[in-house]
Amino acid sequence: MTTDGTACAAETLRPGDLSNPVAVAQALIRLPSVSPDPGESQRLLASMLEALGFSVTHLPFGEGAECTPNIFARLGTGGPHICYAGHTDVVPPGREEDWRYPPYAAHIADGLLYGRGACDMKGGIAAFVSAVARQAAAGGVNGSISLLITGDEEGPATYGTCKVLEWMQANGQIPDYCLVGEPTNPRTLGEMVKVGRRGSLNAQIVVEGTQGHVAYPHRADNPVHRLLAVLEALRATPLDNGTQYFEPSSLQVTSLDVGNEATNVIPARAQARLNIRFNDLHTGAALIGWIETVCRQHAPRSTVTAKISGESFLTQPGRETRALVAAITQVTGLEPALDTGGGTSDARFIAQYCPVSEFGLVGASIHKVDEHTAVDDLEKLTCIYQTFLQEVCA
Amino acid sequence: MTTDGTACAAETLRPGDLSNPVAVAQALIRLPSVSPDPGESQRLLASMLEALGFSVTHLPFGEGAECTPNIFARLGTGGPHICYAGHTDVVPPGREEDWRYPPYAAHIADGLLYGRGACDMKGGIAAFVSAVARQAAAGGVNGSISLLITGDEEGPATYGTCKVLEWMQANGQIPDYCLVGEPTNPRTLGEMVKVGRRGSLNAQIVVEGTQGHVAYPHRADNPVHRLLAVLEALRATPLDNGTQYFEPSSLQVTSLDVGNEATNVIPARAQARLNIRFNDLHTGAALIGWIETVCRQHAPRSTVTAKISGESFLTQPGRETRALVAAITQVTGLEPALDTGGGTSDARFIAQYCPVSEFGLVGASIHKVDEHTAVDDLEKLTCIYQTFLQEVCA
Repeated sequence: MTTDGTACAAETLRPGDLSNPVAVAQALIRLPSVSPDPGESQRLLASMLEALGFSVTHLPFGEGAECTPNIFARLGTGGPHICYAGHTDVVPPGREEDWRYPPYAAHIADGLLYGRGACDMKGGIAAFVSAVARQAAAGGVNGSISLLITGDEEGPATYGTCKVLEWMQANGQIPDYCLVGEPTNPRTLGEMVKVGRRGSLNAQIVVEGTQGHVAYPHRADNPVHRLLAVLEALRATPLDNGTQYFEPSSLQVTSLDVGNEATNVIPARAQARLNIRFNDLHTGAALIGWIETVCRQHAPRSTVTAKISGESFLTQPGRETRALVAAITQVTGLEPALDTGGGTSDARFIAQYCPVSEFGLVGASIHKVDEHTAVDDLEKLTCIYQTFLQEVCA
Repeated sequence: MTTDGTACAAETLRPGDLSNPVAVAQALIRLPSVSPDPGESQRLLASMLEALGFSVTHLPFGEGAECTPNIFARLGTGGPHICYAGHTDVVPPGREEDWRYPPYAAHIADGLLYGRGACDMKGGIAAFVSAVARQAAAGGVNGSISLLITGDEEGPATYGTCKVLEWMQANGQIPDYCLVGEPTNPRTLGEMVKVGRRGSLNAQIVVEGTQGHVAYPHRADNPVHRLLAVLEALRATPLDNGTQYFEPSSLQVTSLDVGNEATNVIPARAQARLNIRFNDLHTGAALIGWIETVCRQHAPRSTVTAKISGESFLTQPGRETRALVAAITQVTGLEPALDTGGGTSDARFIAQYCPVSEFGLVGASIHKVDEHTAVDDLEKLTCIYQTFLQEVCA
């Protein structure tokens, strides 16, 4: 117990409230935790999990301003071991006066719970905590349940999920399956489960030529034409036609830069920037090698500077994913798409250790002012998580 | 007579000196005439021509700072009428202390005459004046000889050759053939006659797209890809394979400009600049129409801004050009190439009225510090011009 907001928030949450995802979400939202989480919301979450019988290990990593609080909490020791992963940190609220209700008030109006983190992703964590609380009251589960909670997913994430996974590996805590609670539904709860993510890389191509007068192109070496040939070769053939779970990989040229104002001069240098979102038919390294080969062919005097933001990954749907889909359909009546689109998440780190999928609230308002979730959705998500746990731990 | 340099220069030129192209060139060079010619060098030239029996008409056009002195001078009234066209204005000397000899000293050293205008093109005018003087002494010519001399060829040229040609048209003075005395030889006197020039146009293409996240290209409309498709279509097929006297037309993309620093954003706009040097298989208007058609196909939301700097033209070699080539070969032993390459000249205006070709000194040092011509070349060019006049006016 501290003398600040943690105590207040925890004290306002009565024992029976852990089964109420709205009350849990409100308590978490009321403790501001812009990335990296300063720790109060994690301590509250830890106290809730301990109240439910979890063994909680605090795993702060990083020094000084980078110090990141993380939690690994486990209930039971047997198999199967199902892990729920998420983050307590949130993005900044922006101008607070732009919000309809203060971003940390957790105000409910017209069936909507407003607040920073309402759906990304304190609301998701609250639904899972309540699902465990209800299942505990209903007789518990076979196997064991854990939570991997980081305080830095929205920031650099250097001392977050990666480091916790290393600790889990070293301590024999790698689960059989991991469910990430990020908001995966574009508009309606139940429409989408993520079973993987595309990889992403950025490349900058700089082509050197030989400057000259535009009337005598044979005495110059136009780097613009060489760059156009490179980009045409890169764009000529689609990278692939997509796979069962992935859209076709996509190459987008995002900038071209020469900056030559003189109409009668062939410039000395031309450059382009591009991004590739790629599926599991490719690796980042192979794509960079391909770009370099094309550049060598069409522009021998060129340099490629590339950075892989993340590799693609896919968890082929198995027993657990089928159970998740069945729970979603049972509660919402919807058949969720198994998708791999959009940006990236900490699931890319988890996929290196165990099967992983993602399902949470509706993401339409994340990172915006007036972030909110339907109160009904919190209840439904709690039911989905509980049904899933009953099935996979049966 | 004035009290300034004109008087001095004219006084230092003795009557017999008009047959000496070196003395004539030196007198002209010593009267600075950075574009537009302030007039002294033209008055000196007019006095020389009057001394040779020419009827000189001063044709100043333009007002105030734009006022441009021009001369039309004619000797005889019969046919054939052969015109020599050139300019007395010069480009600025730059830093005079960078010159080996002062730019208006007309100093001779090691067989080279140094000075601004030595080859572009007071030296050429001097050779023509001396050729006429020598031929007059040798019995004159049948037909008539004229000179079209402007004081603004190096500048905007708005009140120069164009206006004189309009006056000549209105006064029944259009010649049967015009020889422009620009320095046409790249390295050695006698190696090149210009019988035409390529046209030139500049175009700017701006493509509008729809901005969006690079992970969701289907929700955006990437203007960079549309621009690349436009440029690929424009570059895919050569415009032509050249003609007897012209190199193949050349399209050079000179700049690409997007300026998008964000690696995860598809930009809203992309633009390119290009230049086309085109031969007589094309017109500027038809090429602009072609660019607009390609843009409509690949980038409906695009705008093309184009400017034609000059149309191409060609004087099919006939009797006069054959006479010029024969004179060159007789004097230099070289067989000149009939060329249409390089930049542009006032010949493009003259070609709208009569057949025109170009032959003058060696152009290697034009517009540079230490502009110079070989004294020997002045003598040879005088012989070539005289031999040409004897032949075409025979």
